[in-house]
Amino acid sequence: MSTNNTNSNWKDKLHEIIYEADTPAGKLFDIVLLIFIVASIALVMLESVHTIDKNYHKFLYYGEWVVTILFSIEYIARVITVRKPWKYIFSFYGIIDFLSTIPMYISFVFAGSHALVTLRALRLLRVFRILKIARYLGASNQLKDSIIASRVKIAVFLFAVVISSVIFGTIMYLVEGEENGFTNIPKSVYWCIVTLTTVGFGDIAPQTALGQFITSIIMILGYGIIAVPTGIVSAEYVRSTNKADKEKEQGKQPEEIQLNTQSCSNCHAMDHKDKAKYCHSCGHNLHL
Amino acid sequence: MSTNNTNSNWKDKLHEIIYEADTPAGKLFDIVLLIFIVASIALVMLESVHTIDKNYHKFLYYGEWVVTILFSIEYIARVITVRKPWKYIFSFYGIIDFLSTIPMYISFVFAGSHALVTLRALRLLRVFRILKIARYLGASNQLKDSIIASRVKIAVFLFAVVISSVIFGTIMYLVEGEENGFTNIPKSVYWCIVTLTTVGFGDIAPQTALGQFITSIIMILGYGIIAVPTGIVSAEYVRSTNKADKEKEQGKQPEEIQLNTQSCSNCHAMDHKDKAKYCHSCGHNLHL
Amino acid sequence: MSTNNTNSNWKDKLHEIIYEADTPAGKLFDIVLLIFIVASIALVMLESVHTIDKNYHKFLYYGEWVVTILFSIEYIARVITVRKPWKYIFSFYGIIDFLSTIPMYISFVFAGSHALVTLRALRLLRVFRILKIARYLGASNQLKDSIIASRVKIAVFLFAVVISSVIFGTIMYLVEGEENGFTNIPKSVYWCIVTLTTVGFGDIAPQTALGQFITSIIMILGYGIIAVPTGIVSAEYVRSTNKADKEKEQGKQPEEIQLNTQSCSNCHAMDHKDKAKYCHSCGHNLHL
Amino acid sequence: MSTNNTNSNWKDKLHEIIYEADTPAGKLFDIVLLIFIVASIALVMLESVHTIDKNYHKFLYYGEWVVTILFSIEYIARVITVRKPWKYIFSFYGIIDFLSTIPMYISFVFAGSHALVTLRALRLLRVFRILKIARYLGASNQLKDSIIASRVKIAVFLFAVVISSVIFGTIMYLVEGEENGFTNIPKSVYWCIVTLTTVGFGDIAPQTALGQFITSIIMILGYGIIAVPTGIVSAEYVRSTNKADKEKEQGKQPEEIQLNTQSCSNCHAMDHKDKAKYCHSCGHNLHL
Repeated sequence: MSTNNTNSNWKDKLHEIIYEADTPAGKLFDIVLLIFIVASIALVMLESVHTIDKNYHKFLYYGEWVVTILFSIEYIARVITVRKPWKYIFSFYGIIDFLSTIPMYISFVFAGSHALVTLRALRLLRVFRILKIARYLGASNQLKDSIIASRVKIAVFLFAVVISSVIFGTIMYLVEGEENGFTNIPKSVYWCIVTLTTVGFGDIAPQTALGQFITSIIMILGYGIIAVPTGIVSAEYVRSTNKADKEKEQGKQPEEIQLNTQSCSNCHAMDHKDKAKYCHSCGHNLHL
Repeated sequence: MSTNNTNSNWKDKLHEIIYEADTPAGKLFDIVLLIFIVASIALVMLESVHTIDKNYHKFLYYGEWVVTILFSIEYIARVITVRKPWKYIFSFYGIIDFLSTIPMYISFVFAGSHALVTLRALRLLRVFRILKIARYLGASNQLKDSIIASRVKIAVFLFAVVISSVIFGTIMYLVEGEENGFTNIPKSVYWCIVTLTTVGFGDIAPQTALGQFITSIIMILGYGIIAVPTGIVSAEYVRSTNKADKEKEQGKQPEEIQLNTQSCSNCHAMDHKDKAKYCHSCGHNLHL
Repeated sequence: MSTNNTNSNWKDKLHEIIYEADTPAGKLFDIVLLIFIVASIALVMLESVHTIDKNYHKFLYYGEWVVTILFSIEYIARVITVRKPWKYIFSFYGIIDFLSTIPMYISFVFAGSHALVTLRALRLLRVFRILKIARYLGASNQLKDSIIASRVKIAVFLFAVVISSVIFGTIMYLVEGEENGFTNIPKSVYWCIVTLTTVGFGDIAPQTALGQFITSIIMILGYGIIAVPTGIVSAEYVRSTNKADKEKEQGKQPEEIQLNTQSCSNCHAMDHKDKAKYCHSCGHNLHL
Repeated sequence: MSTNNTNSNWKDKLHEIIYEADTPAGKLFDIVLLIFIVASIALVMLESVHTIDKNYHKFLYYGEWVVTILFSIEYIARVITVRKPWKYIFSFYGIIDFLSTIPMYISFVFAGSHALVTLRALRLLRVFRILKIARYLGASNQLKDSIIASRVKIAVFLFAVVISSVIFGTIMYLVEGEENGFTNIPKSVYWCIVTLTTVGFGDIAPQTALGQFITSIIMILGYGIIAVPTGIVSAEYVRSTNKADKEKEQGKQPEEIQLNTQSCSNCHAMDHKDKAKYCHSCGHNLHL
């Protein structure tokens, strides 16, 4: 029993280091992890550059394996230290962690799978946990709130953009024809999105007078349309800013920002209050 | 007389299914219609891609005919079930429905008319009726209100953009000349709109030092001009948002959003109140 | 003396027709003038298109002369009917009117001067006088106020854009060099403005890895910078909108918009109050 | 002692002329300096244009030397007249002044160093001191405050842009491959930033159908993302504008804008109050 207890304690400590950023060890772990993620992405990028790959192939290859093995150890440690491993394995980060570890092993069998390695970029999202200091959270929360509040409006807007692109794209296909680069309707629609969003690659461009006239209308339209999402997000931002300011004036405390980065070792739940002793989701003792 | 009544009942039921989205049958009809519209657009798009058309020509051709026949049946049903068919036939959707049905028939006579099929994309606008749930309507209404409120300002703005383009386009034609791609003034004006809206295809680009200097001025101007419509829409949005918030604070009920999707079988009017029993436009009994 | 009086009356009536848009005759004159301005611009544009000019050269040439002669008559009439002709001749519109009339006459002597004809586009600005109905004025006044209020801020912003372009342009010239299209520093600065404003023609594009890295920084910077003028104009707009709304709430009358389009026949001053009997600038009787 | 005093007075007067813009002599000095900075930048730019350099090489070369010698004199005068020269030498402007003076001397030894001359552009930032009139300061302060207030949000936003570019860039590398211009991942990421920021050079453009589809998503995303920084800056601007307006209404004096351009001759500190007699940083007499 005492062995079991020690074992459990050892797991709990590792859990705290891996999953939380409150203790110095936990913070260090997260920073080291981050450095390895950035390094592994840099490795993949450099490997794709022929001149670099030719000269440093061995170095890049061994580096890749070092990162893969470290990620494997980390993955296994994560699975072991959680009480309900399946919950982690099928969580968003669990899947990403797995997918960013596996490609080097598969590359023994299939050559192309190696490219999956770049999924590691998604792991960078973990950075927000380390930066979990009040102001950063505040910033991204307000951002998230504004985007959520204007979600429906943005959907309506995107729908309008897509419909316009389909209609104008088809018209341009009929007007310009295949000899001017508008070889088929999907390509025309693609060109129309390029134009509406004011990207304008120029790989395809209207040649006929009528086509150029219609393009002028599309561009001015696109120029006007860009005002809409901007207006929406601005208004939501102004509203949320005003609200926060008013509450301050009226002496109301702004909702306390919780800096707690603990995650329950039993059910993997996060977002506990700073003073929480028990998991808000399963009642498990957090300080165990 | 009883036959007539039964006949009328049968028509009214069909009317309810086709024109409204309140009953399960009506909702199903709208969703099926939508799927067929999207499918028919996809067919036209795929047909324009040579490699696909070569391999699946027969499939695409028959698919096209299936859609056309279904649309024809739908069109006839719409005409029959409305009490005043001419009102529907010459309404916005009536004309679109007709134009999106007819091309395949005409294509027996004229080859090119087939392309009109893509007008079907406009039928997609019907989607908003199915999505007629409170929040979507709210979103697009506020959008519509903001755009209507800033209509005049946007017209003034567009007028300024067009005048600037004509003046700068002519100057660039004089400066760059025909040897640098500015072959005539309309083309120069087109290029100027491309530049002012920051699209910048690059199919035509200034080559002389003076031309590049003037282009720099045009671009910075265009960069500044984009702030204007954005500022207008933002301000209108902020205002309408503030207004709604204030009314809420003062306990005023926001104008109830009406979810009624019925359309009068007599005069084709829509936008009835949720509790409406009689058509607000002609007094016809809606529940008949 | 009676002859003199009749003569004066005749002049005053012509003055009213030419310079004002209050009477039906004055409105008609302005609309006809506008049509001729648009027509004359269209003529110049079409003339620059070779295929059109070849087929319709005579028609375009005679049309040009008709417009020129009509503009000449209008210019002379304007000079005669104003009491202080020099004031008109050296006013903004006086100079434009002169410059848009003269080129065809000069083209007998110098071939190239013909192109000046396009200055007529500036005469289109007169359109605002006809559209001088309350809401249009309101719209463009608020626009003007917002731009004036944010004038200094926009100047600071433009200054920052130009400085950044000079610095980054020079860096790119050093990094990319002449073999990659950055043939000299002014061209590099031009390219930098093209990139910062997100126009991106693509006639010049970085080829080296370092150049592409610096370009990435320039682009993200430019993407961020665009937020500044938009934010400025938005804020000014919101402020002016709020102000107007508050004044309405407090029962204050908004400053009455004056629809008077009369201009004093003595001193050419405009912007008289609707009920004005005498010129606010020289005291001359407006209804004489 | 009297000699020493005279000497000191002479230095103090020169200090006032060089470092401050309050006296007519000081203002004149700053304007002359500005003209020389602009002239020296123009010289460097023109020199890089081959056709101009060939014809006016001697003129440009001597002009360069005149500017360099004047800048050297100015630099020495600045060092002499400050009581604590090291503070100036290692200040931001001190380093720029040095770096913009030295290149011509070094160019005797190393040929390429000549290009450093363009660092002079940074000296243009001095212009703000001359323009130090209330409204200009107000404008740039509000700008600075808005940017500082939204600093964290903008960092979060930029982080999101970079992550998206890395992920989408890698995907495009896999989809399009090297034969379509996406020769390696860093270049793909560069292309992705070009597209996300709506610059769109078009030197690289997707060729496959799948690549064009993904590009469409990237562009619409980029079109939406641009709304975010604009919204942030707008909201901050609206807030700071509202605050200033409220304070005015409540009769509060806005923080007085200090026009004092003096800099302490002892410790080089600036930003003294208008009525300040002694340096706020070291207590040295400012009017000495």
